[in-house]
Amino acid sequence: MALLEPTSGEHIRLAHGGGGELMTRLIREHLLPPLHNPSLAALTDGAVLSWRSSTLVFTTDSYVVSPLEFPGGDIGRLAVAGTVNDLAVMGAEPVALSLGLILEEGLPLEVLDRIVRSLADTAREAGVSVVTGDTKVIERRSALALVSRPEHATGPVADGLFINTAGVGTLRPGTQLDARRVQPGDVLLINGTLADHGLTIMAQRHGLGFETDLRSDAAPLNHLLADIFETGADIKFLRDATRGGLAGVLADLSETAGVSLRIDERRIPVTATARHAAEMLGLDVLTVANEGKVVIVLAEREADTVTQALRRHPLGRHAAIIGRVTPDQPPLVELDTRAGGRRLVQRPYGEDLPRIC
Amino acid sequence: MALLEPTSGEHIRLAHGGGGELMTRLIREHLLPPLHNPSLAALTDGAVLSWRSSTLVFTTDSYVVSPLEFPGGDIGRLAVAGTVNDLAVMGAEPVALSLGLILEEGLPLEVLDRIVRSLADTAREAGVSVVTGDTKVIERRSALALVSRPEHATGPVADGLFINTAGVGTLRPGTQLDARRVQPGDVLLINGTLADHGLTIMAQRHGLGFETDLRSDAAPLNHLLADIFETGADIKFLRDATRGGLAGVLADLSETAGVSLRIDERRIPVTATARHAAEMLGLDVLTVANEGKVVIVLAEREADTVTQALRRHPLGRHAAIIGRVTPDQPPLVELDTRAGGRRLVQRPYGEDLPRIC
Repeated sequence: MALLEPTSGEHIRLAHGGGGELMTRLIREHLLPPLHNPSLAALTDGAVLSWRSSTLVFTTDSYVVSPLEFPGGDIGRLAVAGTVNDLAVMGAEPVALSLGLILEEGLPLEVLDRIVRSLADTAREAGVSVVTGDTKVIERRSALALVSRPEHATGPVADGLFINTAGVGTLRPGTQLDARRVQPGDVLLINGTLADHGLTIMAQRHGLGFETDLRSDAAPLNHLLADIFETGADIKFLRDATRGGLAGVLADLSETAGVSLRIDERRIPVTATARHAAEMLGLDVLTVANEGKVVIVLAEREADTVTQALRRHPLGRHAAIIGRVTPDQPPLVELDTRAGGRRLVQRPYGEDLPRIC
Repeated sequence: MALLEPTSGEHIRLAHGGGGELMTRLIREHLLPPLHNPSLAALTDGAVLSWRSSTLVFTTDSYVVSPLEFPGGDIGRLAVAGTVNDLAVMGAEPVALSLGLILEEGLPLEVLDRIVRSLADTAREAGVSVVTGDTKVIERRSALALVSRPEHATGPVADGLFINTAGVGTLRPGTQLDARRVQPGDVLLINGTLADHGLTIMAQRHGLGFETDLRSDAAPLNHLLADIFETGADIKFLRDATRGGLAGVLADLSETAGVSLRIDERRIPVTATARHAAEMLGLDVLTVANEGKVVIVLAEREADTVTQALRRHPLGRHAAIIGRVTPDQPPLVELDTRAGGRRLVQRPYGEDLPRIC
């Protein structure tokens, strides 16, 4: 029984999830201080928020990334940035997040503390509060699992920690984001370099030497997107290119809008390090996950204004127009390659990169 | 690589979590049909809800129960009932839920289908919609984990499935739920029998013979609570007695309100089966988790009206006044035992029952 074990004091125990004294202490000493706000501190079953808007946006995402910490971020930063970005690309201003923690027995408390601090820092960066939460503890996975784990499971054996963040936001008045408004002649923008997050995680798992230059792009994009809304441009479509990468977003857009998309490899921002890493790992930068990149579609006449607005923000310095919507039928996504050829871009079938976010 | 494996068609694969075609199919064929509503079907990053109230209640809970299915419910029913109840005991009418699924590779799709159907049925029972969701897949835990799993991990090796549901609701106008309003002379009510959920789970894990009579009480309590609010009674405190059981709720209340509580074992509803099971398992019914029980505190003069209102609802048939608030200092919770004695009731230290919800 957990109750009879010597007190370790440094690691998560099953008893931390029991709704008892130990859990109360975990919450009071390790969770509330970094996240402090009155709503959360009340430790009631939910948060009460007063509300200015009559239109609410509500979203959720779970995070299972492995490893938990990586250059440029960790699962905590991801859990805030990902959910804030889901709200922001719906045209909402994020207001509040919930935090659901599933902790694995044996997780070092100092790792939990670092991750919760990072999560709190990212929430401050985005201007949102974590207003309600829940904590569960599950048994430790056996170290023996290493023996028979599948070949693709290259991450650490211990999961340590899963996070769910749900988010609520207020819809920005006047926004008309709708893929069906996208039409031939519109242009496609991206706010910076592709594939940094996914390649960073893969490089970490494989212990590759070039990893020192790779950094995840995980970042909350709500302020960047607020800047482009403030230009007054009529933004028709916004989507963050996470799992499935740019290719996944474009496949969805093409299907939903019934239009063809043509992008130009020479205009797609990719760092030399990322290009090299993708080649070594046999990955296509178009299908690799990003955690701080957004695809923007709007009329061509407004593209320069919005590109300039993006470039004035640190998270949009490398913004570029990467392609356009064409009248070709049936709806397809095509890439003009650097080598002068042309190829189809398709949604990946399954998962090249398990546990990437 | 998952992509090169023979198609099983019947089990979750890592590729189902990749944001690709397989994931799209999983969502379209297995998740949307039972949960169908326009907001979810849009498959955008979040749900847009029009809002009537200026006060929002927001809550979250993760569910890691093992086994996934048990007499009286399953993790899907639990995930709706638990989050709906968290909103309801805050004085809110539940409006919408999010659904975050973490699936384990190897989970039979038919199990997922049953659980999602149960989740959808429970949402209909509660009158709420699942309006947004997210799905992740993690690697299968090794069967070898069995060899070294801790003694208390008596559930199945495979987790199969974790669920997070966050919920939003509108605050019922005029509600003044606040533990600090509780004062000596007030009475404590419960809506029915204690410990059924936790004992059902434990009996399942131990394969005990009496399990046929035990059923989890997992149920959404929002309609029951609406009935008691409609009596016009001034409800001062509501809390569902989940992890930590009745003892945990009373310890919290006593601490927050700075009052003593005295309950009477003879008035606390417990079935004969549950009492027997608790004795066999060496558990205290006061600390065992419930998933459809709520503690209600109000002035004595209104107690009969509210008890009658509870008893008219199927989920309140066995409602009872179980004790009262006393002026004794320092604040303590005491039980008058069936045997005529008296003992302290304390919040459990850790976790008797891991993975109970």
